[in-house]
Amino acid sequence: MALAFLGPRGTFSEEAALGYLEREGEQPDLIAFPSIPALTAAVETGLADRSILPIENSVDGSVSSTLDLLIHETSLKIRGEIVLPVRQFLVTVPGVQLSDIQVVTSHPQGLGQCRRFIERCLPNAQQVAALSTAGAVEEVAKSGDTTRAAIGPARAAELYGGSVLAHDIQDNRANVTRFVVLAKEDAPPTGADKTSFAFTVKENVAGALHAVLSVLAVKGIQMTKIESRPTKAWLGAYVFLVDIDGHRSDPVVAESLATIKEMSGVFQVFGSYPRFPLEIFAELFSAPGFPVSG
Amino acid sequence: MALAFLGPRGTFSEEAALGYLEREGEQPDLIAFPSIPALTAAVETGLADRSILPIENSVDGSVSSTLDLLIHETSLKIRGEIVLPVRQFLVTVPGVQLSDIQVVTSHPQGLGQCRRFIERCLPNAQQVAALSTAGAVEEVAKSGDTTRAAIGPARAAELYGGSVLAHDIQDNRANVTRFVVLAKEDAPPTGADKTSFAFTVKENVAGALHAVLSVLAVKGIQMTKIESRPTKAWLGAYVFLVDIDGHRSDPVVAESLATIKEMSGVFQVFGSYPRFPLEIFAELFSAPGFPVSG
Repeated sequence: MALAFLGPRGTFSEEAALGYLEREGEQPDLIAFPSIPALTAAVETGLADRSILPIENSVDGSVSSTLDLLIHETSLKIRGEIVLPVRQFLVTVPGVQLSDIQVVTSHPQGLGQCRRFIERCLPNAQQVAALSTAGAVEEVAKSGDTTRAAIGPARAAELYGGSVLAHDIQDNRANVTRFVVLAKEDAPPTGADKTSFAFTVKENVAGALHAVLSVLAVKGIQMTKIESRPTKAWLGAYVFLVDIDGHRSDPVVAESLATIKEMSGVFQVFGSYPRFPLEIFAELFSAPGFPVSG
Repeated sequence: MALAFLGPRGTFSEEAALGYLEREGEQPDLIAFPSIPALTAAVETGLADRSILPIENSVDGSVSSTLDLLIHETSLKIRGEIVLPVRQFLVTVPGVQLSDIQVVTSHPQGLGQCRRFIERCLPNAQQVAALSTAGAVEEVAKSGDTTRAAIGPARAAELYGGSVLAHDIQDNRANVTRFVVLAKEDAPPTGADKTSFAFTVKENVAGALHAVLSVLAVKGIQMTKIESRPTKAWLGAYVFLVDIDGHRSDPVVAESLATIKEMSGVFQVFGSYPRFPLEIFAELFSAPGFPVSG
């Protein structure tokens, strides 16, 4: 049993892989791969049994390359999901105090996610970009330099022997990433499942999408996500990606999917799998809504 | 009158700006700005009257940073749109033949868009990454080196004195980018207009989205685009961005928008503007549909 994840080691993807295995009560090997397409190729060619891919972030939105792989390039199924808060840590060599730090290094996204912390606690530190958050932590931990700090995941500090000076320094506590686990088969029903599918509409987008949503609404099926991606054939031609509550083997879900398939141009079920209990993060989040200027 | 575009000069954004001005029969100054957020700041602060931003590509999908600016950061309105095919050219210094070329350079996306051409016509050339397609053309045109070729827009060859050895070398002829023009006010009705707006749904996503689409379907309003972006407040909380046919001052459109506003959490009209006649590119495109593996 081997689970492929997006390397290098010490990244959030490795944390997600470890978290998923802990929830499943398993201990297979973890294998790092260098890109998202490599993660599907790994399972398709037998290098791994499953792979874990980031699919959606609560701030940045969907991971387009993962969606496009599912739509266009692989017949692997989704058999699991896990949601992980993006937690950033300030990592140094042992014995360093905040006032010692002259340089702070991370991937530009990591620096951006901790802008308020840096402004408040390290206002005079020089910011230096690194290729990855895990790489920044490795470099600082191994440098012996007491004037440098890195921003990155706890996993990287643990792997490379860094000392955590401050935890949860990200500006936004509600920044979470959802990962999906792909395999040759999806998962059997557990009673608390989701199903992901995609479809294209034949003509009038509003009317056709409305008709598809009617099928779900009439059956009382909850839709937890809807997303559009270009078909790549024509501007204004979309593939819709939908997540619903329920397993594809539930009679009501099966009947709805069959109806939607008839109404659609192209139709594809990505799989049914146990729903991750997002409720465990409820205290991290404010009410939905978005700020509007003007 | 000044129109801000995403620099450097010689890019597709400059081509879009020139094309838009030609269609409008105007000749204002063009000013290059270094980032998409700088383009809205330019108009908000009076450095320019209008700015032109890429918003959607038929292969890559939406430009998230443009959508997020519209949703979260600016009260500027959309007052125009233009669609431009992504055309790539093989540019050298004068007098070079295909067999002379040992190195081909471009932005990695430019190299990727011309993969088949490179495989077939330059199978032995070394591929070298550059920071932008326009920069690659400038560097080759000014080098005097007869063993190098760049891949980039015609506009860059024209600006920097490069010689076009081959045109339309992109793999996908149906690769087009849509740009929007932002200003303090949107556009008056012309009889062939679009309106862009965004809304959040209050609770059950499927039911609420279904109800909003019903409003449009009942009134016979065509929806030409629907897109979802995270609200950034919570995983699974979405802002929907919709384009419809018609001007917001049309009574039927105005009434529908008022109804949708009442049903929505947050509601925002980005503007009404003349619809770009996509029909002029019809011959570039195959029928909608998407390839499915497995």
